[in-house]
Amino acid sequence: MIGDAAALLVIDPQADFMPMVEGGPEPALSAMARLVQAARAAGLPIVVTQEVHRPDLIDFGRELDGEEPVHCVEGTSGVSLLPDFQPRAGEHLIRKRRYSAFFATDLDLLLRGLGVRTVIVCGFLTDVCVHYTCADAHQLDYCVRLVAEACGGSTLAASEAVFAAVERLQHGALVGLEAACGTVPRAVA
Amino acid sequence: MIGDAAALLVIDPQADFMPMVEGGPEPALSAMARLVQAARAAGLPIVVTQEVHRPDLIDFGRELDGEEPVHCVEGTSGVSLLPDFQPRAGEHLIRKRRYSAFFATDLDLLLRGLGVRTVIVCGFLTDVCVHYTCADAHQLDYCVRLVAEACGGSTLAASEAVFAAVERLQHGALVGLEAACGTVPRAVA
Amino acid sequence: MIGDAAALLVIDPQADFMPMVEGGPEPALSAMARLVQAARAAGLPIVVTQEVHRPDLIDFGRELDGEEPVHCVEGTSGVSLLPDFQPRAGEHLIRKRRYSAFFATDLDLLLRGLGVRTVIVCGFLTDVCVHYTCADAHQLDYCVRLVAEACGGSTLAASEAVFAAVERLQHGALVGLEAACGTVPRAVA
Amino acid sequence: MIGDAAALLVIDPQADFMPMVEGGPEPALSAMARLVQAARAAGLPIVVTQEVHRPDLIDFGRELDGEEPVHCVEGTSGVSLLPDFQPRAGEHLIRKRRYSAFFATDLDLLLRGLGVRTVIVCGFLTDVCVHYTCADAHQLDYCVRLVAEACGGSTLAASEAVFAAVERLQHGALVGLEAACGTVPRAVA
Repeated sequence: MIGDAAALLVIDPQADFMPMVEGGPEPALSAMARLVQAARAAGLPIVVTQEVHRPDLIDFGRELDGEEPVHCVEGTSGVSLLPDFQPRAGEHLIRKRRYSAFFATDLDLLLRGLGVRTVIVCGFLTDVCVHYTCADAHQLDYCVRLVAEACGGSTLAASEAVFAAVERLQHGALVGLEAACGTVPRAVA
Repeated sequence: MIGDAAALLVIDPQADFMPMVEGGPEPALSAMARLVQAARAAGLPIVVTQEVHRPDLIDFGRELDGEEPVHCVEGTSGVSLLPDFQPRAGEHLIRKRRYSAFFATDLDLLLRGLGVRTVIVCGFLTDVCVHYTCADAHQLDYCVRLVAEACGGSTLAASEAVFAAVERLQHGALVGLEAACGTVPRAVA
Repeated sequence: MIGDAAALLVIDPQADFMPMVEGGPEPALSAMARLVQAARAAGLPIVVTQEVHRPDLIDFGRELDGEEPVHCVEGTSGVSLLPDFQPRAGEHLIRKRRYSAFFATDLDLLLRGLGVRTVIVCGFLTDVCVHYTCADAHQLDYCVRLVAEACGGSTLAASEAVFAAVERLQHGALVGLEAACGTVPRAVA
Repeated sequence: MIGDAAALLVIDPQADFMPMVEGGPEPALSAMARLVQAARAAGLPIVVTQEVHRPDLIDFGRELDGEEPVHCVEGTSGVSLLPDFQPRAGEHLIRKRRYSAFFATDLDLLLRGLGVRTVIVCGFLTDVCVHYTCADAHQLDYCVRLVAEACGGSTLAASEAVFAAVERLQHGALVGLEAACGTVPRAVA
């Protein structure tokens, strides 16, 4: 896997987000599974995030002012992590209330504790939770590596804009799946 | 209960903290139970906090550099909430990794969502998690009401110092149990 | 101006960002000046943000890993606010080190103190500091109103993607200049 | 000076706080001056904090609900740093609105950028800004070294309670002035 002191962040692999992915989530899910496998093989820390809202809807903030319906409510099936992405023993779960996985969570504390300097990011939705997690990681001084093939967005156009934005912030941030998995040298990817 | 737009914060009613309370936790526990009952009767939001550390100890930060042994580890009995303080349906749980219940958690988001302006605080340990939660509440512009009888600290002297410190920050912050429960007028307390 | 309890945020009207604006900053600057004038007339709080980096470059974090050269260094002419956007007496300045004006600053404290619930946003660069400020405002439960004509981005395509992203988060977030200034009813804008 | 990767934090050496120090600030000021000199000689980063409030008093939060009068207002003489503690070129200033120097500031970003792991703390008031800065440093995983002789508090009793509280969090946190300055071995101090 990429570099030293890296961790894999798997953003919101949850039932409720699947129908929101333009073109369907399958290509991303399959790439995400390969990343998880490669991270396990390389002994990299794996952090899975899960958006969870309280049943009384009190913690949605402004999240219902826009495109998204009520989602990821505790006790519903939609909040569940997809079975392939349940953290195993020794892997980490971060529950969150907002888009960025760093927002009002202990993710930064956890990554500091683990000595992580680089986050390899994949998951859903590219143009919301993935994007704002990358932006916060960058602002918190992490090296960001975003695996485009392992992300699913609300539209392809929005996803492309995110890839360009992230690459603009850190040259080399966008990496191919094979390079991320370490099966081909990064320069060739 | 006290004032408008108040919530009751019950800090860390957990097995592992009980032996750390000088004089034993019983007087505080009994006062805390009365507060919870009064809050339920008054329809006030109740937020219970729970310190939780990961089994690999990766998120203890500096918490093991001092007096406290390993504590509140996920999967151990010591991390459990005491049965009397399990949040019921409609009540809220905040898991935390550090002393302040606002630190790297969504407590502020939750309280904002609930429209809360005043926090009534009780629990353990007065001179650690209770104190730093009160300090952050104050810095985040909440009105703080600390019920001394419903707190337990590592020493009585340390507890007294906290009560003085909190009262110094907001005059009137220290309230008696009966006043907090609304059974006597506050001015008389 | 828009709604109740609103404030105008003028993001980074600074010399160093002017050459980065595709198509030049003039159209945005002229719209921003109108917004400031309207906010003053309406008695709305005005907050100007200024990115400032220390001369030893120690606080750039990852900001030099990408497209942007060294910028906004204390003591250089490039860090200066453009003369038209210097805060007047009673207006507010927020110095920041990162993109989001909420990141490691007291902007949220200030807006809470002012009783602000809606932020009207303009400035530079649309696809960096403006975007991430809007995202954090949204995550902090503010109502966001972004005046596209009063923003300048690194590319027009990137700007368009931001406008779509912000509108996706809060329907109605994108507002025209005349509507924002209150000279035409919003529904007509 | 103490350890590796350390920085000296000089908390709020400002005119308005001087009359609040029980017994007068002189002993602390003289010890603080020695610390600054030793830090300069050792090449340690120096960070001076300054509490600053806006003239319209909008950002005081709850700070006027208790013991302290209006203080540290921009444009008044009371907000000024004492001449001996003005940061020199290459030293750092952190303006803050609340007690903790980490609260709504970029101090953590700065210390991360500098590679700092240990903060040596001195200044005013021991039982307010010094204490809550130490608590946040601890919660943010810094090693804390507090130089009691170089602090001034609102009462001696309150100061003693803080020293005990900080030492309880990290054994060895309380250090003598000579040990901190490196003129005697720490174990002897």
